[in-house]
Amino acid sequence: MKLAIDAMGGDHAPVEVCKGVEKAVAAFPDTEFILYGDEKEIRRSLQAPHERITIVHTDEVIHSDEDPVKAYRQKKNASMVLAATAVKNGEADACISAGSTGAYLTAGLFVIGRIKGINRPALAPTFPTANGKGFVLLDAGANAEAKPEYLLQFGVMGSIYAEKVRGVKNPTVGLLNIGTEANKGNDLTKAAFTLLQDSHLNFIGNVEARDLLSGVCDVVVADGFSGNMVLKATEGAAGTILGMLKAGFMSNLMTKFAALLMSSQLKKIKDAMDYNEQGGAALFGVKAPVIKAHGSSKSVAFYNTIRQARLMVDSNFATEISNAIADDE
Amino acid sequence: MKLAIDAMGGDHAPVEVCKGVEKAVAAFPDTEFILYGDEKEIRRSLQAPHERITIVHTDEVIHSDEDPVKAYRQKKNASMVLAATAVKNGEADACISAGSTGAYLTAGLFVIGRIKGINRPALAPTFPTANGKGFVLLDAGANAEAKPEYLLQFGVMGSIYAEKVRGVKNPTVGLLNIGTEANKGNDLTKAAFTLLQDSHLNFIGNVEARDLLSGVCDVVVADGFSGNMVLKATEGAAGTILGMLKAGFMSNLMTKFAALLMSSQLKKIKDAMDYNEQGGAALFGVKAPVIKAHGSSKSVAFYNTIRQARLMVDSNFATEISNAIADDE
Repeated sequence: MKLAIDAMGGDHAPVEVCKGVEKAVAAFPDTEFILYGDEKEIRRSLQAPHERITIVHTDEVIHSDEDPVKAYRQKKNASMVLAATAVKNGEADACISAGSTGAYLTAGLFVIGRIKGINRPALAPTFPTANGKGFVLLDAGANAEAKPEYLLQFGVMGSIYAEKVRGVKNPTVGLLNIGTEANKGNDLTKAAFTLLQDSHLNFIGNVEARDLLSGVCDVVVADGFSGNMVLKATEGAAGTILGMLKAGFMSNLMTKFAALLMSSQLKKIKDAMDYNEQGGAALFGVKAPVIKAHGSSKSVAFYNTIRQARLMVDSNFATEISNAIADDE
Repeated sequence: MKLAIDAMGGDHAPVEVCKGVEKAVAAFPDTEFILYGDEKEIRRSLQAPHERITIVHTDEVIHSDEDPVKAYRQKKNASMVLAATAVKNGEADACISAGSTGAYLTAGLFVIGRIKGINRPALAPTFPTANGKGFVLLDAGANAEAKPEYLLQFGVMGSIYAEKVRGVKNPTVGLLNIGTEANKGNDLTKAAFTLLQDSHLNFIGNVEARDLLSGVCDVVVADGFSGNMVLKATEGAAGTILGMLKAGFMSNLMTKFAALLMSSQLKKIKDAMDYNEQGGAALFGVKAPVIKAHGSSKSVAFYNTIRQARLMVDSNFATEISNAIADDE
């Protein structure tokens, strides 16, 4: 297997990208890596050269403050665009980047292309839950607008991912809504509810944002606007509370001692809620795995994203979706 | 001032409602209370009769699993409907209930009525923030659909509330969106952005859900679907993490000792994030204050909601909105 990696994307590139790749080189002897970016910087960041790591030099980088579509059009040699192009040309099986989400999704969509029959590709991060099971949410923001049919396809794709990649048997699918009753929500969710109910999916009905982290279902379907909102509200609330807690533990000698006594419990909570453990957010509905790692990813997150890419390639995720959509038509 | 209170609404009614009222009777010598509900139960829940507490008996109660509109239509003697009717008839200046949100908002809207010129009333809870300032979010779910003009009016109403009721000078208004750049979001937020920018409000642009709890602005404007989603995602994330933390502190003798050492810090965090301190969610855009207390409210929350109702009455909130809307037209 060959993976194309944007070595320049994310807050800690290329150092943490390279560390993550080297961890993966050791763990997965069947996998080769092509790193795109500043060759000098990459060489400096790698502990040692390796026969399964190839570097493809490029000066062009897309920054997160650039207009995504414009940046993609003007910088065809940007590290993330080259990574996607390698997949398109069959030189790699999947690509990974922690760079600008908008530009990377644009590259994934335009370079690698949509699966026939898919209305809109969707961004699908995996959330941690208190019970350790986690769930896939889609769309987390690839599209600002949605139609009921898109939401049905999101359900189909999410269900395949949960089953084939995450190993969940007969995964439950919920529709993100502002109430659990069938008649709740706006025009979009009401229409999507009917479509999902009439589908072959294991649809459990509407789910509320407040129940997500308790692990209410395996796949959560939402329009990209709501999905992105919930993703960020959850991250924000968790971050604020953990931040206040950290400040509390640091406030005096007594509380510092308390932190020591609680250290293994705190680590457990941190690990359970750590998105780094979950890999990246994949773009579902394109012809090959395109995975977006979190901008603040460190080596562990990159390693886990590589693991996820391998699972997606091994399970023929894109082909499974293609077949399912063809069957539905 | 006279306040009409639904004594039967919420998980801890009527005991905690009565406790909250008795606290308020002591604190606000100028305020009279009319309690609607089961007279026997209310008498039992009150520590002592008081000349400023009147009880109006009714057997009818609307339960939270009933269809809101149907329940409102069929139970005109329900405690929450009687409370709203008292306001409409001039027997009370404001009403409070912790019962079924849907039925209470329906009663507030149909019995007390919309302010002339207001397109849609909006539900407006106050969120706590890490810096202690808090912010008002609207709409938190009174309407599932919205138009750009509604969002502009939400901004106007929220701004008046922040200034007149919460005492914030020249309050900042943000538009809840999935990115901070001006061109971000869906058709609704893009159109609302322009309207808000062209208004006389102190509009600071788009705000993201992840920054809300850090206190990014004083008023957050959203359609009811997104607002409700963010409210519940925030509550859910906070609840899950605090729950895990509690379990961690309870896991053995050492961690229990840690909890003891951290107790004043933990109380600080709990207080800062406690919605009970913020009062209830008011329905903005109706002719008199209609306030929904959280379903799980205890006496402190009821007391704070009464305090909030007094501030809304004293500041002539409804009249201020009416004037502002008339000026805009």
